Amino acid sequence: MNEARPIIGITIGDPAGIGPETCVEALSNPEIYASCKPLLIGCEGTIRRAYLQKGLDKTGYKLNVIDKASKGKYEHGTIDIVSSGEYDWESIAFGEVQKLAGQMAFDAILKSVEMATNKEIDVVGTAPIHKEAIKLVGVKQAGHTEIFEELTKSPYALTMFNCHKLRVFFVSRHMSLKEACDYATKERVLESVKQIHSELTKLGIENPRIAVAALNPHGSDNGLFGTEERDQLIPAVERAKELGINAIGPVPADSVFYKGKNGQYDGILSLYHDQGHIACKTYDFEKSVTITFGLPFLRSSVDHGTAFDIAGKNIAQSVSLIESTLQSAEYWRMQKKIREN
Amino acid sequence: MNEARPIIGITIGDPAGIGPETCVEALSNPEIYASCKPLLIGCEGTIRRAYLQKGLDKTGYKLNVIDKASKGKYEHGTIDIVSSGEYDWESIAFGEVQKLAGQMAFDAILKSVEMATNKEIDVVGTAPIHKEAIKLVGVKQAGHTEIFEELTKSPYALTMFNCHKLRVFFVSRHMSLKEACDYATKERVLESVKQIHSELTKLGIENPRIAVAALNPHGSDNGLFGTEERDQLIPAVERAKELGINAIGPVPADSVFYKGKNGQYDGILSLYHDQGHIACKTYDFEKSVTITFGLPFLRSSVDHGTAFDIAGKNIAQSVSLIESTLQSAEYWRMQKKIREN
Repeated sequence: MNEARPIIGITIGDPAGIGPETCVEALSNPEIYASCKPLLIGCEGTIRRAYLQKGLDKTGYKLNVIDKASKGKYEHGTIDIVSSGEYDWESIAFGEVQKLAGQMAFDAILKSVEMATNKEIDVVGTAPIHKEAIKLVGVKQAGHTEIFEELTKSPYALTMFNCHKLRVFFVSRHMSLKEACDYATKERVLESVKQIHSELTKLGIENPRIAVAALNPHGSDNGLFGTEERDQLIPAVERAKELGINAIGPVPADSVFYKGKNGQYDGILSLYHDQGHIACKTYDFEKSVTITFGLPFLRSSVDHGTAFDIAGKNIAQSVSLIESTLQSAEYWRMQKKIREN
Repeated sequence: MNEARPIIGITIGDPAGIGPETCVEALSNPEIYASCKPLLIGCEGTIRRAYLQKGLDKTGYKLNVIDKASKGKYEHGTIDIVSSGEYDWESIAFGEVQKLAGQMAFDAILKSVEMATNKEIDVVGTAPIHKEAIKLVGVKQAGHTEIFEELTKSPYALTMFNCHKLRVFFVSRHMSLKEACDYATKERVLESVKQIHSELTKLGIENPRIAVAALNPHGSDNGLFGTEERDQLIPAVERAKELGINAIGPVPADSVFYKGKNGQYDGILSLYHDQGHIACKTYDFEKSVTITFGLPFLRSSVDHGTAFDIAGKNIAQSVSLIESTLQSAEYWRMQKKIREN
């Protein structure tokens, strides 16, 4: 048992998706309790339905509905729950975009922010939401990251993809590849490198080695294919070095992740969504999880969606949720050690 | 010992680079002889220099200079050599772009094409050339693939990146990322899929499953980020299906390589250089080798350059050369089995 176990509040996500069932399965896993104190945040009825669906009542697991995180048992055999509100949860059908489901998913997020802001919980974990469903209740942000960033009024939210020794950050994610090529300007790359430097330093990594991936094949081969290295990336790396940051690159993208995998860098800046995602997911899909830095608390996320096609069928795996929870606990301990030194 | 061992002629590449030393090291490896009959094609003096540099004379290895591939011994302890010409090889300095070195590298390629065309050898393996050096002797092609394509007057040369179960092909490789976005038209994607289908069929794979990677994140998420899936990729895949090809996709790029790694596809079409290269090299750098189909013979290549900075220092590893030689022998056997059925 790890002495420093963070309380991790996990929002159950869209109740029409696989969130609730993966959440109760994760909290019935004994390993998780050695590393953290997990509790579920969401509609009690929905969680109970998933609990029964999984047959956890028959194997001796207990649900423990609490109103304060401090009242949790946080031991294997108990699934601690904080309710996010009362709903007509029985009307929710699996696999459909529903306004009420969007409301329930969003309420759980609001509750998690409230609890994290009050320091009741240390880390927020999130099961998947459905963007169409949250749109129906007037949420304008594209996803979890933007919602948390706005709710906590944070200057930035820095997404990290973690897979073994690979820590991958992104200049951009959800835009077309062509737009991403133009988006990776000197200013934005520099800003990302500064944020990465700041967040890795808070983990206790001294003078972190931050590699900037190249955009073009072979890093443009000295300008033979593309100008972005010369005009944007090299100037950004040079400026970062002048600021005392251990920035490296641009490093050709087909070797930067291989080198990172072998421990050559503390962080890698990916210039577009697929660059870093291909690397991590091809390397080890199940161990690829998302951690968000820059908020007043750590936030972790699974790397799959609501999977409406298999929701409610006891097929969904909780491996990604367990992995993201364990990794966020590890990052929380790294931050804690530095804060207390 | 495999009964069907192809004769693989390996060109020693630029003599100022690490080609010659990795070649003699590879041919002193006992494992390679169980799978194929390797011989070196290049300047005898250069090969002898590498042989002495490696101390292979002191460990009992013999050089066997022959004028016909049929005279090779092809057994561990002997390094068979076919000379590509007489040169002032002693004037070659390591690590420098030199016209004579370019000439020597190109002559070895010419000799390999002659021998493969005459069916003296079954497969051509290539150690790295330096593009500046071959430019000095008037070679206009960008690299090996284009040189072989033109010398053999082949309708196409299809490059495959192989890494365990991953077989990755490319719509484009050496152009800027932005150009590559525009280059992946319906016509070019369809043409690539047809070539892949043809070459995989020649390997004995029935109705090969060919996945087309998406260009934009999440395959554009139904047009949310980018139009290329809708306008180019989906029509290309549909047309391929009409032609009876088992084409799949476009599949989001961050899962297509993971699925391929697990055996879900027989081939994957990558839309730009880094997409497939990141996947293979992050997965297993050393096992990533290049095989060229479409020529009258198979051609394999190492996945590194001339490495001028370490040439002549006995540091260079032959692992990539050995791996590419072994994999090309395996592909040759697959083709042979079908030809003879």
